[in-house]
Amino acid sequence: MELLLQVLVTMAVLFALARFGAIIVTKCGLPGLIGEIIVGIIIANIAGGAFLHDFLGIVIEDPIAGTDSSDVYKVIYTLSELGVMFLLFTVGLETKVSDLLGSGKPAFLTALLGVILPFVAGVALILALGTYDFNNAMFLGAAMVATSVGITARIIKDMQLMDTKESRIIIAAAVIDDVLGMVVLAIVKGISASGGGIDVVEVLIVVIKAVIFVIGAILIAKYVVPKVYTYFDEKKQARIKAGKVPYTFNKLIFAIIVCLSMAAIAEFIGLAAIIGAFLAGMMFANYAWEWELDHKVEAITTFLISFFFVNVGLQVNINSLTDLSVLVLAAIVIVLALVTKYIGCGVGAKIGDKTVDKQSFNIIGVGMMPRGEVGIIIASIGLSSGVLSENLYAVVVLMSVMTTIIAPPILSKLFRKKYEQEYTIVPEDQI
Amino acid sequence: MELLLQVLVTMAVLFALARFGAIIVTKCGLPGLIGEIIVGIIIANIAGGAFLHDFLGIVIEDPIAGTDSSDVYKVIYTLSELGVMFLLFTVGLETKVSDLLGSGKPAFLTALLGVILPFVAGVALILALGTYDFNNAMFLGAAMVATSVGITARIIKDMQLMDTKESRIIIAAAVIDDVLGMVVLAIVKGISASGGGIDVVEVLIVVIKAVIFVIGAILIAKYVVPKVYTYFDEKKQARIKAGKVPYTFNKLIFAIIVCLSMAAIAEFIGLAAIIGAFLAGMMFANYAWEWELDHKVEAITTFLISFFFVNVGLQVNINSLTDLSVLVLAAIVIVLALVTKYIGCGVGAKIGDKTVDKQSFNIIGVGMMPRGEVGIIIASIGLSSGVLSENLYAVVVLMSVMTTIIAPPILSKLFRKKYEQEYTIVPEDQI
Repeated sequence: MELLLQVLVTMAVLFALARFGAIIVTKCGLPGLIGEIIVGIIIANIAGGAFLHDFLGIVIEDPIAGTDSSDVYKVIYTLSELGVMFLLFTVGLETKVSDLLGSGKPAFLTALLGVILPFVAGVALILALGTYDFNNAMFLGAAMVATSVGITARIIKDMQLMDTKESRIIIAAAVIDDVLGMVVLAIVKGISASGGGIDVVEVLIVVIKAVIFVIGAILIAKYVVPKVYTYFDEKKQARIKAGKVPYTFNKLIFAIIVCLSMAAIAEFIGLAAIIGAFLAGMMFANYAWEWELDHKVEAITTFLISFFFVNVGLQVNINSLTDLSVLVLAAIVIVLALVTKYIGCGVGAKIGDKTVDKQSFNIIGVGMMPRGEVGIIIASIGLSSGVLSENLYAVVVLMSVMTTIIAPPILSKLFRKKYEQEYTIVPEDQI
Repeated sequence: MELLLQVLVTMAVLFALARFGAIIVTKCGLPGLIGEIIVGIIIANIAGGAFLHDFLGIVIEDPIAGTDSSDVYKVIYTLSELGVMFLLFTVGLETKVSDLLGSGKPAFLTALLGVILPFVAGVALILALGTYDFNNAMFLGAAMVATSVGITARIIKDMQLMDTKESRIIIAAAVIDDVLGMVVLAIVKGISASGGGIDVVEVLIVVIKAVIFVIGAILIAKYVVPKVYTYFDEKKQARIKAGKVPYTFNKLIFAIIVCLSMAAIAEFIGLAAIIGAFLAGMMFANYAWEWELDHKVEAITTFLISFFFVNVGLQVNINSLTDLSVLVLAAIVIVLALVTKYIGCGVGAKIGDKTVDKQSFNIIGVGMMPRGEVGIIIASIGLSSGVLSENLYAVVVLMSVMTTIIAPPILSKLFRKKYEQEYTIVPEDQI
């Protein structure tokens, strides 16, 4: 069978199965990505999946460098990585620098404490165990840092509570959290690449690299992008004046070139490709809507991202999860992930805004709990660079899935309790 | 360098160069894809390109099966093939079955004669030469069939002459031409795969396969897709009634699954993947606008298609074009391609509609000349399945490029001559 046919069949089957899994879990009120991950786990591990596994010709083995993988798997792997890149590009598109800087003390403190506490707790836990090395501890800590803004934002949107104080703090904090998460990832990846251990000079170099990269992106966003905007706008007006149909995809092409370049540069200087993509998105955040970048990039992401989550599942070795010690560790990590976010974010909000009462504390603490895709992305970077052990990878996937399952229903209840009166839905056709 | 970094760097550089090439040729009034092809030719063949070639790690060799290609090239190749698939999906989205059936006699005859004449002329020419076998002749003939609706439509739109008789005939005929082109491709590919030679049984089997596939697609479009539409619409209304934000990407995901599946099936039964993608697009044509499929799929295509045209250039061996006999052949093929389309389409229109005068004859004949991407796509299928010789591949690329360069300025002049009065552009802001 030639490569193209193999790839097409694999993509069609994986895509359809991923969608099937997503629909099933969505019916149970869970985010679709969990279904996609489960589909991957089934294909890779479970009896019925063996046939599919062989049929699809996917060779799952040592993910490090993946030198022996089949051609089809290499293609699917690359598509999935491009998917994550575009996902972070989309997240960046929603992150305006001005909003970030002006998001206020409560949101900033919520994010900051919500990053520090889980990270320190995660690193300390793994080091205390003594079974894993420092790099493993760092990656697990980093994976515990990230808050998935997507999942919480969806609940808030669905409940139409965008205008509450808690929602504003959560959304802003989750966005800052993304940026801090990227910084933590940059540092962790840089240190692990330099052979591990805490060499102060190495750490400094990584931090400097990351800071220069981030500042460079912000400067470009501020001084270069507006000029590009004017350029495109003038060309568009010129075409309209000449009675011609304006091009509508030039800006998308330009944005993709910047995204690919930033991702390549980030990867090249030892940060992660997704950091570059995220910053590239931030550069265009002010024009995302006017240029219709958000919808167009989201279409590309939609096409590619399912392969990532299925691939996350493919790499989970179910044997790790039948090992009692790993399961116990996973349980501890999950509890720690929930508690540290809850306390860190709640306390941060309280310090930043004295009017935050017990109810608001709960809402913010719980709203920041879901790790969603971001924790998994960080873990998969750790796995593919050969730093994170297979067992800890499985633990992170489980932690991300469980925090994402546990938090939303509690959040809905807390919101409903506080805003019982406001939360009477008026269907659109009855307004 | 790990695979992801290599792929990112290659994609960023190729994408940026492709864009650069496209901008340069667009400034000269040519379609962007010509610039992208030239970029590919330069990278693969010309002195300055050698460095880029090595730098990008692209290994261009025997394209048959491509077994020895580098991993990066395999990924880029797959992306480019997916790009063509989505391109034909987009073309299909613009091809409503109802428009097709109701497009009237003039358009149908224009398309039919415009397909038969070039095909017969192309096959006869190559067979008369005696240098190439029957399969080569068939593929060259098939590549001469296709009309690129995109390029002519762009000119018509830019001149705001959508409502003229000639424009309507050209657009409708170009669409029918696409369908007929797919049928010709199916037959040619089927015959060549069966070892060549005109075995009546083999030809019949291919024709039957193609017909069943096309009819199946039309039946699904007619009976299944409307039900799916209702299903999605009810779900959307239910979410809105429940006060929730409706999902906006479910339909895109569904359409992509169908597109991938149809492409895989087409490839599997010996037709080409693009035929499946085209038919999948046709299935959704009635809902493309309402479901916002056109813009979303176009975004995905925009991301992927540049790699295809650069790859087209990469596979052109410039040595073929320094061979005088090949150049002479190319010149003959170009003249034949122009003349047969002009006469075939003009006569077809005239037979179908007696009111077609000399001026209309010229406009329609010239408007159908550009082969654009479709001829190239067919040739690249011939090349990658090892049927079309490298020399004839270069001839087809040259023919496609030249017909695409030659026709538009003539068409503009002819239109301007006939519609001098109507063609006074009123800028939007002065209306």
